[in-house]
Amino acid sequence: MAAVTYEFIKACKQTGARLGRVHTPHGSFDTPAFMPVGTQASVKGMSPEELKEIGAGIILSNTYHLYLRPGHELVKEAGGLHKFMNWDRPVLTDSGGFQVFSLGDLRKITEDGVTFRSHIDGSKHFLSPEKVIEIENALGADIIMSFDECIPYPADREYTKKSLERTTRWAKRCKDAHKDTERQSLFGIVQGGMYEDLRRQSVSELLELDFPGYAIGGLSVGEPAEEMYSMLDVTVPLLPYDKPRYLMGVGSPDYLIEGAIRGIDMSDCVLPTRIGRNGTCLTSRGKLIVRDAKYAKDFSPIDSECDCYACRNYSRAYIRHLIKVKEILGVRLTTWHNLRFLQNLMKDVRQAIMDDRLMDFRNEFYEKFGYKV
Amino acid sequence: MAAVTYEFIKACKQTGARLGRVHTPHGSFDTPAFMPVGTQASVKGMSPEELKEIGAGIILSNTYHLYLRPGHELVKEAGGLHKFMNWDRPVLTDSGGFQVFSLGDLRKITEDGVTFRSHIDGSKHFLSPEKVIEIENALGADIIMSFDECIPYPADREYTKKSLERTTRWAKRCKDAHKDTERQSLFGIVQGGMYEDLRRQSVSELLELDFPGYAIGGLSVGEPAEEMYSMLDVTVPLLPYDKPRYLMGVGSPDYLIEGAIRGIDMSDCVLPTRIGRNGTCLTSRGKLIVRDAKYAKDFSPIDSECDCYACRNYSRAYIRHLIKVKEILGVRLTTWHNLRFLQNLMKDVRQAIMDDRLMDFRNEFYEKFGYKV
Repeated sequence: MAAVTYEFIKACKQTGARLGRVHTPHGSFDTPAFMPVGTQASVKGMSPEELKEIGAGIILSNTYHLYLRPGHELVKEAGGLHKFMNWDRPVLTDSGGFQVFSLGDLRKITEDGVTFRSHIDGSKHFLSPEKVIEIENALGADIIMSFDECIPYPADREYTKKSLERTTRWAKRCKDAHKDTERQSLFGIVQGGMYEDLRRQSVSELLELDFPGYAIGGLSVGEPAEEMYSMLDVTVPLLPYDKPRYLMGVGSPDYLIEGAIRGIDMSDCVLPTRIGRNGTCLTSRGKLIVRDAKYAKDFSPIDSECDCYACRNYSRAYIRHLIKVKEILGVRLTTWHNLRFLQNLMKDVRQAIMDDRLMDFRNEFYEKFGYKV
Repeated sequence: MAAVTYEFIKACKQTGARLGRVHTPHGSFDTPAFMPVGTQASVKGMSPEELKEIGAGIILSNTYHLYLRPGHELVKEAGGLHKFMNWDRPVLTDSGGFQVFSLGDLRKITEDGVTFRSHIDGSKHFLSPEKVIEIENALGADIIMSFDECIPYPADREYTKKSLERTTRWAKRCKDAHKDTERQSLFGIVQGGMYEDLRRQSVSELLELDFPGYAIGGLSVGEPAEEMYSMLDVTVPLLPYDKPRYLMGVGSPDYLIEGAIRGIDMSDCVLPTRIGRNGTCLTSRGKLIVRDAKYAKDFSPIDSECDCYACRNYSRAYIRHLIKVKEILGVRLTTWHNLRFLQNLMKDVRQAIMDDRLMDFRNEFYEKFGYKV
């Protein structure tokens, strides 16, 4: 049996959304779900217990970073990523593709794989589909991703097509290299840029390889939101109903809601942790830059409708002070709040699916948050 | 009645140490006690709940820093330091004297007070005994300190004498300025450098002002340990037995033990938090620099005899990785461990006093830790 399975619970009558549950060797999580990112085997600023308190059912970690530091062999020796970082719930590792291709001039692609220089010390490395699987096997996440090419935006049709076809060949090589399918499930990644027919081609090629789950890559890379939504409209309906669907690199409230509406089950992004460290908070009334001078004497919580540790115990004035004077607790609190905000958002999304009113929820949320409806 | 009182419990038959309890408007704490330092209204890296978990009965915060940022008026408006930082146990604020006098060329002393330039933006400020009390009253700590001059080491006899006499005059002005003695207790600070007779003179002058507690300042400023111990040997016996005695700026295990042996009840230092952020841990077998390459594949805890959160859940290899890649959780864990180590040390010291074996405990501890006995 596959390590990871999808349990369908209910479809939303108002949208294409679905309520479900993903089962893994380290427990189950409800979908649609947002996955906090623990790039270097730690969700920046958070402890595992705090992640559980905010309700995170699964986290993501980055193969590229862990391969470079501390090295996948070391993590394997430690007993795998879960044990190394003291996290007993599900973990997903990406393939390093996104990071490697982001290196620009520092990398060179061939059919065999990618030669690149480390962003840390300039040392030379080579990643192939087989090598990535070796690394992901050593890390031991429940869900592992195929090595894909994430192309930049915009990209011409010819290159996009060539690239997606290579991504398919690499996906097959990943599948062939991955043996222990009962311990870890390997997902395929749909590419195809902003071309509807190429997205269809990518899905069709990947379906032949029969993965236990599918990701949609190459979106949220700079294109207008409407273009991303069109790609989802084309892609998601082609994916099998009995497998999880993962939209990669998406974490803003609107993208999460629009993804769910289109049938996405899982998403991840560094957004909540990254903007939190910069003193920006997501609230029910929109973004709040708690660093701003106007909050200096504001003794109300970040978001009076939020139930997180930061909002229950601290004022904007205190958190602003901590951020201004660079106290660690400041970024802990903004990170904590932002992650809890997104977990609460996904909980609300799931409830709205249950109640067949996700489109109403979307409109109410946007109205309050300040998005254009 | 004074806000802060000292309850004597028991003297050690082997040393000059004493077991006691200090009562404040925000609860009581057992002595001898170590106070973690929350310079800017936060103990770096720690939440209030975590401080309680490690057993901190009281924390210290710095008047100089809070005066500059976010400003004492703002803290007052927030409801005081306890409420501002969400800490309901006792707090002690220093007087800013140590920080101001550390500014070197940036400050000028007169009988009236000290003019100085902020280390942050160079802005000009003036602190007098009256101003310091105004600030400390606004901050609202349970124990507040008189404005003193902390002279450098070494200092000549003439300057030391002039300075301590001014510190006495400033102590009197502080006492006159401090009105609400039922809410906050003002402590006097013994100075006198490394001169036994000047230490005696300082104590004698301060005793006439009858403070509810006394601190010993101007030690651990670069002098040899033996010199500090001699000053304690001269000073502590002159202090009243029914008032708490606070040795300022001391936090290494040997200084804490030697202080307790000589009858000290309270100490504070940034050492455990500062070295923790640099990847250095205090353990029962001495200091451990967890950043060191030799711990890269060491999957044992920082200290196998420690019961802290870090030692219960994480390996040296993981913590080293976190510190190397600058993950916040790394410094959280080393800080947590070091603070817990000192809280456990003080608990052991109190137990040893109870059992009349503090000198034996000292020798055993030094042997294991690697100090010369």
